Amino acid sequence: MKIVIIGGGAGGLSTASNIRKYDKKAKITVITRDENIAYSPCAIPYVLSGQVDQFQDIIMHQPEDYLERDIKVITRAEVVEVSTSLNIIRYNLLESDSNSLQDESYDLPYDYLVIATGGAPITPPIEGADLKGVFKIRTIGDGETIKEWAQHSSKVVVVGAGLIGLEIAFGLKKMGLDVTVNEMLPQIVPRSLDPSMATIVQKYLESEGIKVILGKGMEKVAGQDQVEGVIFEDDVLEADMIIMATGVRPETKLAKMAGCELGRWAVKVNQKMQTSVPNIYAVGDCVEVVDAITGQPTQSPLGSTAVRQAKIAAKNIAGVESEFKPVLNAMVSKIGELEFGSVGLTESFATHNGLEVICGKSRALTKARYYPGAKRIDVLMICDLKGRIIGCQLIAKERVAERVDTMALAIAKGVTCQELATTEFSYAPPVSMVIDPIILAAEDACEKLKQFHTTRNNNCG
Amino acid sequence: MKIVIIGGGAGGLSTASNIRKYDKKAKITVITRDENIAYSPCAIPYVLSGQVDQFQDIIMHQPEDYLERDIKVITRAEVVEVSTSLNIIRYNLLESDSNSLQDESYDLPYDYLVIATGGAPITPPIEGADLKGVFKIRTIGDGETIKEWAQHSSKVVVVGAGLIGLEIAFGLKKMGLDVTVNEMLPQIVPRSLDPSMATIVQKYLESEGIKVILGKGMEKVAGQDQVEGVIFEDDVLEADMIIMATGVRPETKLAKMAGCELGRWAVKVNQKMQTSVPNIYAVGDCVEVVDAITGQPTQSPLGSTAVRQAKIAAKNIAGVESEFKPVLNAMVSKIGELEFGSVGLTESFATHNGLEVICGKSRALTKARYYPGAKRIDVLMICDLKGRIIGCQLIAKERVAERVDTMALAIAKGVTCQELATTEFSYAPPVSMVIDPIILAAEDACEKLKQFHTTRNNNCG
Repeated sequence: MKIVIIGGGAGGLSTASNIRKYDKKAKITVITRDENIAYSPCAIPYVLSGQVDQFQDIIMHQPEDYLERDIKVITRAEVVEVSTSLNIIRYNLLESDSNSLQDESYDLPYDYLVIATGGAPITPPIEGADLKGVFKIRTIGDGETIKEWAQHSSKVVVVGAGLIGLEIAFGLKKMGLDVTVNEMLPQIVPRSLDPSMATIVQKYLESEGIKVILGKGMEKVAGQDQVEGVIFEDDVLEADMIIMATGVRPETKLAKMAGCELGRWAVKVNQKMQTSVPNIYAVGDCVEVVDAITGQPTQSPLGSTAVRQAKIAAKNIAGVESEFKPVLNAMVSKIGELEFGSVGLTESFATHNGLEVICGKSRALTKARYYPGAKRIDVLMICDLKGRIIGCQLIAKERVAERVDTMALAIAKGVTCQELATTEFSYAPPVSMVIDPIILAAEDACEKLKQFHTTRNNNCG
Repeated sequence: MKIVIIGGGAGGLSTASNIRKYDKKAKITVITRDENIAYSPCAIPYVLSGQVDQFQDIIMHQPEDYLERDIKVITRAEVVEVSTSLNIIRYNLLESDSNSLQDESYDLPYDYLVIATGGAPITPPIEGADLKGVFKIRTIGDGETIKEWAQHSSKVVVVGAGLIGLEIAFGLKKMGLDVTVNEMLPQIVPRSLDPSMATIVQKYLESEGIKVILGKGMEKVAGQDQVEGVIFEDDVLEADMIIMATGVRPETKLAKMAGCELGRWAVKVNQKMQTSVPNIYAVGDCVEVVDAITGQPTQSPLGSTAVRQAKIAAKNIAGVESEFKPVLNAMVSKIGELEFGSVGLTESFATHNGLEVICGKSRALTKARYYPGAKRIDVLMICDLKGRIIGCQLIAKERVAERVDTMALAIAKGVTCQELATTEFSYAPPVSMVIDPIILAAEDACEKLKQFHTTRNNNCG
């Protein structure tokens, strides 16, 4: 069996490794444009901040490591054609000193093709976006270029206050730059946090010296040859560096070329991660998934999602039936000392989509009150009007990630706030409170639910 | 409505506070032998180790604090009689300079009585157990006495390698003593950990300079007036201090006096926390509970259990129907830097009780491999032969407690290893691995299950 996988990120390589687990003989080839493989793009900001020493550290494997498992990896190669009638892909290598294609093409036959082409950063179509000093951030190469430029730079504007934007902002602040984050929407992390929780993260960033400008769209990048500033309708901001962290669009070109059906957001796949072309699978940022709460198509551009999808695709390709479940987009981030996470729907998203919800809140501590080093923790729990938990957000300087996972499991299992409020959790003074902050939020949600059914006021927001 | 609560620990005081939430007018009286109330006995070891400054710090409230909520607290008082025909308890105050009773008795009428008398340390019936320098550990008073004696002591033997024994051993080691832990059984923490996991904790204790003697029962305590050593069948250990951490028995005297039915282990209660006497409730270490996996009566001497029971008892007394669910005994401890926890059944307990199980294991990291400070984490997951998870144990130098809670929820919801293996968790390099150690253990359990159904070998142990 011949399997060709396009993409050397988490989705592509995990598919390769997982197929090998089930099929010792399959001929597996991974093909990628990138020079590096098997690195964690979400770790790039931590190299800038100095928490990780160097970019080499975040590369987990070299192509040679895969050869040991009889997986062939071709780097710096671009797939130029997919022929579904012949079951062949055609690729050209990139020139060693540029990203132009070499003349010669090579063909690779496949029994199964896996498209794991990921996403590409979106550059807003504004004047000056192509000036020197304007950067996108996706690959290690991008990270290296940013780090180099930042060493001779003093004022940076990061455009976009999603996770990557904020993490990069913090990294550049730690490098000593004067950092401003600009977000068009009226809050940071709009995809994952509700305003009251976003404000907590924003205050932390500001306490670390990062400026935040909200609710203002950039009109153009000023400068002749090189960036000199950012121009808003009513304001100008000086800058010698701009990072465009304005989102990522799924890279669907090859899928389209192969005749795979696209959905609302990206490549359409069934629960087996199979596209509309039966022997072509797709995984990772280039596919769309189903939201576990709304049942609607959505995106889940997370490394953890890609890896879970890769397992499912690999099993099905190897003949072991397996289904990818709808997603909750469980996420967590750590910026400096602050950890924050979210799973399921935000209150804003839920209400904009016509769901009536109530919100349970708690502000408590991560350890017993008297135990040194106890940190404040904030929890926001979103429930439907029967009490079913549909979302949760947490912020603290420790112990957030695993609580996000607990809530992911709770939401996946359809747990209500009433049930969670009486659930058994562990306790020891150095690591928890006798009543966990999650339980307190669930108790508060139960109260809010009662109030709502009396007053019709959900007390959210 | 008049409510009398006997016991000033977590169970008694939480019952009082919770009743007040639902009933603003009830006359609530808490009565306790202890001089202090509202402290966390499980925090005593952390005062010895110096992690918490002083014993006063672990007292969360004074009796006056309860008066603000119109809850009367009577300390240093012993209940000498319960009359269920008159619905009255009789108590005597203790002498101010001794624990003898004063002559005068007082009567308190009740509509509802709550028995929250906790447990009393078990002293093994051996020669020399009453010598000076032999200590039990339960109250702050015990903690103070131990700390004082330890300041003039050099060699201590802690008898019993349960949680309290080990935590106290670590505390005394930090005070500079030569510490030996002696456990009759062949492993430490026999109630919560299987041998392979117990060994990891034991090695940590030994690396901290604590000696551990297993599988040997003490025959007598040597000494004239004061402890000089511990005598085993084939060995003698010099010591000028001994801590008996040999377990706690439920304090059921008053319940018996009131005619409440006792079960196999302690006071019998229904799901409302009601004893066999309709207007007498009982909560905390003095009651027995139902094990969620076996359905059998068991004990759950945990502060967290007492607090959850208190809420249920309070609601029912206040007329809000509520049920206490069977327990999983989710526990966690932190000794020095090492955190370990357990929930559900151990493999040993399960097999001794005739359950056939398989064990999934993982040894992984708490952060991405390249992120500085990643710690090793060990997971042991116990499943029945259909894959239903019935127990889980975790050890690492961080982030254990919340994972125990995730597993408590998983077990409570009847999740299988197959289901958990495809569950969505969050990921970010500074706080987790892209595939969580729990998921890895679930995947391993799935493999073991397949192997078992082929080879009938469960690979546990």
